[in-house]
Amino acid sequence: MTSLWRERPVGIVGLGLIGGSLGLDLMARGARVQALVHRPATAERARERGLATVVSTDPAVLEDCGLIVLALPLDRLLQPPEALLVALPAEAVVTDVGSVKAPVLERWRQRARFVASHPMAGTAEAGVEAGLPGLFEGRPWVATPEASTDPAALSAVQQLAEAVGAQWLTCGASAHDQAVALISHMPVLVSAALVEAAALGGAAAGASALVRHLASSGFADTSRIGGGNPELGTLMARCNREAVLQALRHYRQQLDGLEALVQSEQWPQLEQALAATQALRPEFL
Amino acid sequence: MTSLWRERPVGIVGLGLIGGSLGLDLMARGARVQALVHRPATAERARERGLATVVSTDPAVLEDCGLIVLALPLDRLLQPPEALLVALPAEAVVTDVGSVKAPVLERWRQRARFVASHPMAGTAEAGVEAGLPGLFEGRPWVATPEASTDPAALSAVQQLAEAVGAQWLTCGASAHDQAVALISHMPVLVSAALVEAAALGGAAAGASALVRHLASSGFADTSRIGGGNPELGTLMARCNREAVLQALRHYRQQLDGLEALVQSEQWPQLEQALAATQALRPEFL
Repeated sequence: MTSLWRERPVGIVGLGLIGGSLGLDLMARGARVQALVHRPATAERARERGLATVVSTDPAVLEDCGLIVLALPLDRLLQPPEALLVALPAEAVVTDVGSVKAPVLERWRQRARFVASHPMAGTAEAGVEAGLPGLFEGRPWVATPEASTDPAALSAVQQLAEAVGAQWLTCGASAHDQAVALISHMPVLVSAALVEAAALGGAAAGASALVRHLASSGFADTSRIGGGNPELGTLMARCNREAVLQALRHYRQQLDGLEALVQSEQWPQLEQALAATQALRPEFL
Repeated sequence: MTSLWRERPVGIVGLGLIGGSLGLDLMARGARVQALVHRPATAERARERGLATVVSTDPAVLEDCGLIVLALPLDRLLQPPEALLVALPAEAVVTDVGSVKAPVLERWRQRARFVASHPMAGTAEAGVEAGLPGLFEGRPWVATPEASTDPAALSAVQQLAEAVGAQWLTCGASAHDQAVALISHMPVLVSAALVEAAALGGAAAGASALVRHLASSGFADTSRIGGGNPELGTLMARCNREAVLQALRHYRQQLDGLEALVQSEQWPQLEQALAATQALRPEFL
């Protein structure tokens, strides 16, 4: 069986971290990549970086593509410009890379050959300078097919994902969205609150300089994702609001439990709870 | 001015991560180190590793030491064995390495030449195998002197700290304890709750395997200190209980604020809050 991404040009809409990395990897494997970007300056820089075979700001660049990857931010994916919709060839397999799947399906499922998917790869970088080779190697690429999803389209996206070294898996959109809320979107808020608490608590204790001076690698790790891209964190909370709020309820229940043990000085029970956490964590690594 | 740690043998009580590392660094700088440990097997292993010039289970090993570092876990430091108290020479400068300072001072301040201090260095390891050279290099070593603290004793501990490359600073015990609650002890609970929430929330969503499979480096970082040594986490909460509870109040206030923005869909305000966190975090690195 030949692969759609080898037979026909691959379209990529957006050449940020995900789109740019995908372009580099596909070209390295001999694919012809035709990319659509919004701004002329981005197109120029993308050409300089060699992120695609052809880069254009004209949606017509997608016209002979067999497989098109919408590598757009979630908000633009959920409200796609009319010019893009018109330019997508009717017979093309189309997939996305959004980190929330239920709203994407709601918006896109009426397209006959649409496949909702989410490559779980990233760095702290964004934009046309961010793309880099090998980003997807060994990382999960999750698709959330429905009963109505075209099996041949699903298979074409799987071949694309596996071509760039990703680990393919499928699950329901709701399970996906709840899982990423728990392990990614809610933790951003948990981590952000920590930075603010240290700053305000330090000020309240008259120890503003001290908290900054004494913070070490443990604090740096715990606060890292809370100090990440604010647009991205907001977009995740907005597009996955119900699941994030549900994840926060689970989180609060656990934190309440630990705080109650400290409050009531139940030290053996606290040690037991922390030992359970210590045993559990490696399952997530 | 000559340094006490050069002139006279240095005593170290306990050869775990801190005591063992200190022994290695002091010996490398030409000091004579006389160490007291509890168990004969520990003494034998410490001798094999060369953690001190002399290692003994007999408290008499401390008898001619000019400066003694109590590198004991907090609980043993707060309830020291009688044999140790008797063995500490009356004229010796004595310091500790405990990560909570107010209760240490409460227990030890009656000693004429006691200096409460806290070298802020660590790894995930503990025990006689954990000590390693260079652990204190560039790390803060905080002392919390009081009006009654002997200035010459304070200076002797400072010279010791600086000899192993640490950055010396002093502050009040209460400010220290509140600062470490905010940047170290409370975050352990915040981080631990995350692991439990992901596990229980994943199970509730029928996505137990999925949450484990999709968890990536962001989750690993945020959950790292929550998956650490349960005895140590409990000891910190126990010995610094008031400050930890106060830090949790600051933390909850911040998390409540972020959750309210998600609940009420105030997205520009959420983005503003996350941008403030992003700007603030580098001050703690």
